[in-house]
Amino acid sequence: MNIPRTSFPRVVIIGGGFAGIALAKKLSKQEVQVVLLDKHNYHTFQPLLYQVSTGGLEPDSIAYPIRKILKDFPNFYFRLANVNEIDCKINKVITDIGDLSFDYLVVASGSETNFFGNSEIEKHSMAMKTIPQSLNLRSLILENFEEALLTSDLNERNALMNFVIVGGGPTGVELAGALAEIKKGILPKDYPDLDTRLAQIHIIQSSDCILKGMSENASKKAEDFLEKLGVNIWKNVRVTNYDGKTVTTNTDLTFETATLVWAAGVKGSTIKGLEADEFITRGNRLLVNEFNQVIGFENIFAIGDIACSISEEFPDGFPMMAQPAIQQGQQLGNNLLKLIEDKPMSPFVYKDKGAMATIGRNKAVVDLNNFKFQGVFAWYVWMFVHLFFLIGFRNRMVVFINWVYNYIRFDREARLIIRPFKKKKT
Amino acid sequence: MNIPRTSFPRVVIIGGGFAGIALAKKLSKQEVQVVLLDKHNYHTFQPLLYQVSTGGLEPDSIAYPIRKILKDFPNFYFRLANVNEIDCKINKVITDIGDLSFDYLVVASGSETNFFGNSEIEKHSMAMKTIPQSLNLRSLILENFEEALLTSDLNERNALMNFVIVGGGPTGVELAGALAEIKKGILPKDYPDLDTRLAQIHIIQSSDCILKGMSENASKKAEDFLEKLGVNIWKNVRVTNYDGKTVTTNTDLTFETATLVWAAGVKGSTIKGLEADEFITRGNRLLVNEFNQVIGFENIFAIGDIACSISEEFPDGFPMMAQPAIQQGQQLGNNLLKLIEDKPMSPFVYKDKGAMATIGRNKAVVDLNNFKFQGVFAWYVWMFVHLFFLIGFRNRMVVFINWVYNYIRFDREARLIIRPFKKKKT
Repeated sequence: MNIPRTSFPRVVIIGGGFAGIALAKKLSKQEVQVVLLDKHNYHTFQPLLYQVSTGGLEPDSIAYPIRKILKDFPNFYFRLANVNEIDCKINKVITDIGDLSFDYLVVASGSETNFFGNSEIEKHSMAMKTIPQSLNLRSLILENFEEALLTSDLNERNALMNFVIVGGGPTGVELAGALAEIKKGILPKDYPDLDTRLAQIHIIQSSDCILKGMSENASKKAEDFLEKLGVNIWKNVRVTNYDGKTVTTNTDLTFETATLVWAAGVKGSTIKGLEADEFITRGNRLLVNEFNQVIGFENIFAIGDIACSISEEFPDGFPMMAQPAIQQGQQLGNNLLKLIEDKPMSPFVYKDKGAMATIGRNKAVVDLNNFKFQGVFAWYVWMFVHLFFLIGFRNRMVVFINWVYNYIRFDREARLIIRPFKKKKT
Repeated sequence: MNIPRTSFPRVVIIGGGFAGIALAKKLSKQEVQVVLLDKHNYHTFQPLLYQVSTGGLEPDSIAYPIRKILKDFPNFYFRLANVNEIDCKINKVITDIGDLSFDYLVVASGSETNFFGNSEIEKHSMAMKTIPQSLNLRSLILENFEEALLTSDLNERNALMNFVIVGGGPTGVELAGALAEIKKGILPKDYPDLDTRLAQIHIIQSSDCILKGMSENASKKAEDFLEKLGVNIWKNVRVTNYDGKTVTTNTDLTFETATLVWAAGVKGSTIKGLEADEFITRGNRLLVNEFNQVIGFENIFAIGDIACSISEEFPDGFPMMAQPAIQQGQQLGNNLLKLIEDKPMSPFVYKDKGAMATIGRNKAVVDLNNFKFQGVFAWYVWMFVHLFFLIGFRNRMVVFINWVYNYIRFDREARLIIRPFKKKKT
């Protein structure tokens, strides 16, 4: 892979998400050589993907070139690569651009959409975990409305204007809210010759509440907000199949739709060589100890969504979210330096800073440790926090301007079908 | 196509480029029904495509949803459609979403890259006439540098860092200038482990000067600017072939490159049914009279790049640029209303407002009628004019911020490989 060996130990990081980047930053200017591998040349700010899908933001606002993040770090190397396998016996990663030996390996490969083994759903539904996926969803939504104009078959038209979101977590809730605002603010103007009141947005949630990880107040209020926006919430319903036309559930309910968004779960993106039963736990995650060491290894670590550290308080591991990923990355940075110097490492302690979700303009829910609130102020806090965590001054400026503009004008201008998702019917 | 016939005459416009949109705006609030057909759901501000290719801007900054342009116009319909044929005998257009009859037809289908019949070049080279093409070029440029890092074959590495642009018109010049600035300002930081000084940028021009349509001063100064930026300009050289590796020319010169950008010419995008010899003139354009009527028809018009109106001053028709397109669209709007009211139409008179091109920061050339200038002030004028002609307040703001940021930071942050163009070698 054309990377020279130096006298510094080599740390290979797989994945430039929240965890990998936090770790890389901690290791900058230290006496280690760091090689970061990612299949994209950019870091994705996943919490705002739903705004890319709904035409509120463009990819460059929520993506950031990894090389730019690393540019001032000496002893840093980035390679655009798919990691195919880890050979733990000889301390080597095997990628599509060649092999690379490591002294320390950190797996930060994140998570992917979990279809729970249903290949029919996987084939026909839309996921929203990456920028290309989000752009595909954007194209599909817009293509559906263009197509709805053309048909005189009422059932077909309804199916095209029917959006079914499976999963009432933050992703599902935020997407549903954004679609509801598009229905209200944009569709009537863009499609005056279509009865857009018929457009329907459904959330299907297998348990008895949405935003399950948040407080009861937040969950209830989010439900209120969504219902006011005209979103239909179906609780205690589990989707059993989707053939591209009809969603079937474990109840009598069925939905005719051209768009099923699957936001019902994620699973760890494991890599060959570290997938034996002894490493893998619930959610396809790698079992790690309190130092984020993969069980059984001294020099192989996992952080972020892919890592599962089981404790009394978190029997299923920490939530698969940005906060634990960032904190683990930072902590591991310190611990790796200690390990190299033969000092004892410190165990990871998760500081839960709370959770939040936005439903629409002036509507958000925020749970902090001692302070839980909903509504307009929560919405400002949500915006401020998301702007703050975006990487890069330009990104913050561009996102801010888009938000102000969209707020004032009830608009989302990036409703562009740049790469059509489905071929138009002839 | 589900469009009701009313008592108003129906004007069908094919194409939402500069010409089609200018015409549509003129016909708003008039007693005509207007149907605009385009294969994209957005209008493209083509003069800034090269900034999308070079990571300076995102598509939404230079694209604008056509439905949003038309949203306040009564009696307007937009359809996302590919027009397959025009049946002039029965006044019908045949599209991939159905047929549509018209009373008046305006062909504003624009132009496409002209490979002058060389299918080998067409297959292996990059064009830059649409947003998807520009994004492909962006991905390819970035992928090439990632690949250059991996090879130890010096010839291959040089070919990957070699950029050959065929055509010294505004597109070729502006792209070359942008690439030269990337080479200077971004590559050394992004690729510290690659000798990016070896990156080469070539412009190949078949005639003896670049920016042929502009003044001698502008052409000479642009050449100066480019040479100072390190761009190699090859004049009086004609490319004869490109097999994906080697560019051959009509001289002894050859170039080894992984990237050939073909900006050597455009031709009218004609449509079946209007392609008989009697309509088609040089550059595959439709011959029109001084009212932009296609020769031989009373109710079929052509405007913009696709139209060719021959006069003494312009024996090859007006230049295929935004200005004639906009002016023809506006003029035809007035003329159509006159025609409908049985009043005599006014002949089109082209008001040449001049031309300009930018080469890089503080470097542009501007030819106005009585005032030709180059350098910093020209660069400010270039920016002001381009901001002014962009559609939409938000677009102007976002482009402005990007430009200010890029200027201060010597940066272009949208260097993202969202959709890889070539599969990475394994």
